[in-house]
Amino acid sequence: MSDARDPQLLKGVLPMLVIGLLGAAESYGYELVTRLRTAGLDGIAPGTVYPTLTRLEREGRLTSRLVPSPSGPARKYYRPTPAGEAYYASALAAWDELGAVVGAVATRREDDR
Amino acid sequence: MSDARDPQLLKGVLPMLVIGLLGAAESYGYELVTRLRTAGLDGIAPGTVYPTLTRLEREGRLTSRLVPSPSGPARKYYRPTPAGEAYYASALAAWDELGAVVGAVATRREDDR
Repeated sequence: MSDARDPQLLKGVLPMLVIGLLGAAESYGYELVTRLRTAGLDGIAPGTVYPTLTRLEREGRLTSRLVPSPSGPARKYYRPTPAGEAYYASALAAWDELGAVVGAVATRREDDR
Repeated sequence: MSDARDPQLLKGVLPMLVIGLLGAAESYGYELVTRLRTAGLDGIAPGTVYPTLTRLEREGRLTSRLVPSPSGPARKYYRPTPAGEAYYASALAAWDELGAVVGAVATRREDDR
């Protein structure tokens, strides 16, 4: 993403993106960071993602399991709970609704030119 | 909007919507609230919008002028500064980029089904 990225906007949408990706396939923390980068959040830092994982698990929207790693300590793999999947669906609907508002405002401005 | 509205997401996008609407036509506070509702933020409260106006003016993204009102105290009309217009363009680009990421994640989930 460009420098236009708005930290507040990203903060609002990151939980949805995290649950969305983990719903497609479970991941441990750093693997999820690389998946978010591949999805388009080029510059996202592990220090932004890890607290989101911790918070979503505390809120009951993610669950985790430890998987032994051949090359180091066991890895904690995260996946959504049913509550997390419900949150994802609701957040995606909210995103689409806000998108309609953003589009309406932008179109109105074009009309006024 | 439905109950699916995410307060954090709204908080991230509200400054952009406020500047967008005021760039199309200046408004005083309560008039802006009704325009936001018409644009799709059905339930938005004045108490959410007014602090955003105050903050954006303090940040130099909005300017204002007092206009006498026949029916009460003078009304403060807001419109964007050049810095506000630049912020709007940048925030809209960021929204579109995040939208592409959200779409990529949602599509990937569909593919996995």
